Amino acid sequence: MEDINPHSPPSLSEQQFDVLIESIKDYQITHGSLLKHVHQAQASLALTRAVPVSLFPTTFPKGCFDSAVRIQETYNDLYARISQDEGFLFRVLQPLIQDDPFTKILWNIHVAAKQEGLVQPLTLGIFRSDYMIHVSAEDTILFDTGQNHELKQVEFNTFSVAGAAHSDIVAGMYLHMHKTGAYSSHFGDPAEIPSSIPPNRPIAGLVEGLASAHSAYGAPKGNSSKRTGILFIVQHDNFNIGDERPLEYGLWDRPSPIPAYRLEFRSILKHVSLGPSKELLFSSQSCPLSPLEISVVYFRAGYEPEEYDADGRAARLLLEQSLAIKCPSILSHLTTFKKVQQALAMPGVLEQYLSPPQCSDIRATFAPMYPLDTSDLGLRARALATNTETAANYILKPSLEGGGNNIYGEDIPLFLSTVPRGKWPTYILMEYINSPAQHGNLMSSEGSYEGPTISELGIFGVCLWREGRDGRTVEVIDNREVGWSFKTKPEEMEEMSVVKGYGFFNSPSLVDY
Amino acid sequence: MEDINPHSPPSLSEQQFDVLIESIKDYQITHGSLLKHVHQAQASLALTRAVPVSLFPTTFPKGCFDSAVRIQETYNDLYARISQDEGFLFRVLQPLIQDDPFTKILWNIHVAAKQEGLVQPLTLGIFRSDYMIHVSAEDTILFDTGQNHELKQVEFNTFSVAGAAHSDIVAGMYLHMHKTGAYSSHFGDPAEIPSSIPPNRPIAGLVEGLASAHSAYGAPKGNSSKRTGILFIVQHDNFNIGDERPLEYGLWDRPSPIPAYRLEFRSILKHVSLGPSKELLFSSQSCPLSPLEISVVYFRAGYEPEEYDADGRAARLLLEQSLAIKCPSILSHLTTFKKVQQALAMPGVLEQYLSPPQCSDIRATFAPMYPLDTSDLGLRARALATNTETAANYILKPSLEGGGNNIYGEDIPLFLSTVPRGKWPTYILMEYINSPAQHGNLMSSEGSYEGPTISELGIFGVCLWREGRDGRTVEVIDNREVGWSFKTKPEEMEEMSVVKGYGFFNSPSLVDY
Repeated sequence: MEDINPHSPPSLSEQQFDVLIESIKDYQITHGSLLKHVHQAQASLALTRAVPVSLFPTTFPKGCFDSAVRIQETYNDLYARISQDEGFLFRVLQPLIQDDPFTKILWNIHVAAKQEGLVQPLTLGIFRSDYMIHVSAEDTILFDTGQNHELKQVEFNTFSVAGAAHSDIVAGMYLHMHKTGAYSSHFGDPAEIPSSIPPNRPIAGLVEGLASAHSAYGAPKGNSSKRTGILFIVQHDNFNIGDERPLEYGLWDRPSPIPAYRLEFRSILKHVSLGPSKELLFSSQSCPLSPLEISVVYFRAGYEPEEYDADGRAARLLLEQSLAIKCPSILSHLTTFKKVQQALAMPGVLEQYLSPPQCSDIRATFAPMYPLDTSDLGLRARALATNTETAANYILKPSLEGGGNNIYGEDIPLFLSTVPRGKWPTYILMEYINSPAQHGNLMSSEGSYEGPTISELGIFGVCLWREGRDGRTVEVIDNREVGWSFKTKPEEMEEMSVVKGYGFFNSPSLVDY
Repeated sequence: MEDINPHSPPSLSEQQFDVLIESIKDYQITHGSLLKHVHQAQASLALTRAVPVSLFPTTFPKGCFDSAVRIQETYNDLYARISQDEGFLFRVLQPLIQDDPFTKILWNIHVAAKQEGLVQPLTLGIFRSDYMIHVSAEDTILFDTGQNHELKQVEFNTFSVAGAAHSDIVAGMYLHMHKTGAYSSHFGDPAEIPSSIPPNRPIAGLVEGLASAHSAYGAPKGNSSKRTGILFIVQHDNFNIGDERPLEYGLWDRPSPIPAYRLEFRSILKHVSLGPSKELLFSSQSCPLSPLEISVVYFRAGYEPEEYDADGRAARLLLEQSLAIKCPSILSHLTTFKKVQQALAMPGVLEQYLSPPQCSDIRATFAPMYPLDTSDLGLRARALATNTETAANYILKPSLEGGGNNIYGEDIPLFLSTVPRGKWPTYILMEYINSPAQHGNLMSSEGSYEGPTISELGIFGVCLWREGRDGRTVEVIDNREVGWSFKTKPEEMEEMSVVKGYGFFNSPSLVDY
């Protein structure tokens, strides 16, 4: 149609905007695109607010999107392999094991579980690789067809990966809005499925991944239970049940339902125990199959240091040494730390795990990253980070997972001056990804935003692998790319976190540049 | 299983209750079983609270449920036929046409449209017949296997019938709770679909009904539009979009999508017009198909007298005289008035429309009802209603649709003394349905209730009919029973209205008594 200009947002009249806003709110309310209010005055209350969203899909280079999708299985493979390479992880994480209490706790749990004997050779990974578009021209502030768009990885998440359900629902929402003509014909004829808005079914993808691990676990190994099921380890008072419950429903609703139960991280020790063959047994008054033998432990909690008091450590150890397939194992959990991302970018590292073409694909997505240790490269990075002028082009990242706690640009030198030098190696320095801004319209319960925005693409992967008999090689059993997330934030915001209110779910509108 | 006692609610431990409550809340949040907060401080807010629900299905006599389902098509047929019998309706409604402003307005719109010429012989009805269980023993307060349960109709709704989507979602919720073992094995083995909880898909049923009328309308009759679509006439600031939007999505999501647009009752005149062939044309910036020829006008608004100011009357007239199929027509709307229900109960009336076995089926569901006019029967009713002792056994109902504004038992004589005698014929007197109470657990954002409860069963029907060439006979084209609603209230509440906070969606648990 002639009025399509895929390089700009739809231009809508005020009336069209009003209808769009109500249509989006109603779609969210009727499809569970919601955050639950917790800490209610009374148990019977179930108040919600809508997940923050963009009012329409945002332009994204098709080539970059396709690349991200294409290389996800390679990324899955890479992270499966390094998850089994204890020696590599120990070398990389050593500064953290010494100086970061959380890393130390996790590593020690791994060591303790290994001493008891790790009995389950299978591990399930549910991953999300996050990217932004980088353009070299320093003065570029808007997408431009003349630019050379590069896909650069922000981080690779391996633990308690969120956003699959919300992304799935929101993707369906934009297709519905398009179909009803709420965007006029901006994304093409409303009667046609728009080619620029990619379909997205990560709920089904994650459910398939969990089901595939459940099936690989096989029949009960002990005599206590005749059935097996999946245990979701969750946080208490979680307002983000809208991102978890659909996975449980997906498991229960299969033609052969897979029992799926929730257990709060803080209550693990009360409800699980090991049977004689180290099978993990879950018992609860709400589970008539009790004791239920657990095939897969799926973590949606356990990523915050505060969760690991004595009971928390004992609980994680109990799960780790059990026969249940962990999603993920402690070692796989540790691969989510930024220090690992940086180590993979060092010359010669990828080559230990991947073929030359795979290495080239993966390396192309690396932004320049440096350790902050006393190696030659580390010293160079220290010089960059402590000089306000050069630091402006970098982000200092602590080696925790998630996007929080980063230090940006000119703030780095002052910040580092407050950190004892001995702890500097726990940080990495990453070159700033210069992502072109685009005009956006964002909506949340906090209000609306219209103005320049930056987006982040995440690709979901599921991977089931088996440790080789030699304890080092890896047999990948199931490896899939299962959809995307796309989050947008006002340009001036540094962090991208929907749950903290800084980010908005969105969809890419793919354009050939 | 041995611990099933279908005659009592499940007995759950405190921990099981806590899990059940969170599971129900989360299911509601993720499935749109929600009420939207309207009148928000800012447009971007989409706050909700959960639809009030029972924590578990409530015992209901299977024989009565089966009867209600079985006779729905007969009821559909009956109401299709009386909707076409203008003479009957005029005779019955005459006291209201004189003395009730709302009835007069609707009747006058019908007359005006008829003078212009009614051009669409097809009408769609979306009905819900509501029942309670009656037991004769006056001292009975709980269900008892020895009782003779009778299915008695509370009212028959023909206009803006609500609850289909909420009932559909809630029915799925109980099945999910059962499947996960949240009710232990109270409703049977959780691994089996429970035979006592009837499946319920009224969303699909109503969508099929609307689609069937849309299809019967056929190709555009005018030259202005190449497409046809369904227009939902809705209230502004409606918190109950969760009961309407799923029907729109169902139409859009069909293999051949049926365009469905919403139009507020107060804005009809701004957005619709008649084409040369009286085809109804909808134009809106949010509808790229504008002007869209409307195949079916589906009313979810227009039942409140306040909506009928001069513009409201002109709007309803415009729709009524258009070629669009009305769901429903004015005459069919008028059949929802209690006076019609009472008139159908008079000797010899049913026989004009139904076969003898059908009459017998339908009559069995009638509670004793009386006019309050000056006929012999009316005078008898006046005597009953003005004596505190005899009035105790009756309900006085104004002839509006819906459950509100009823006067109960001993309050009737005093109330009637405030009503001019000339207006008495606008009321009907109905014998109190003595419904046995059952123990229930109800939950809403207002709090929880545990104690004796009363339930009401509704059966949804859709019916598409054509006026015969003689203007009197009726050809029924599509006639289906499409599911149920089941609502429960604390015994001491007189009204049953979920949206007013007096009722709770529920499911029957069918038991052979």
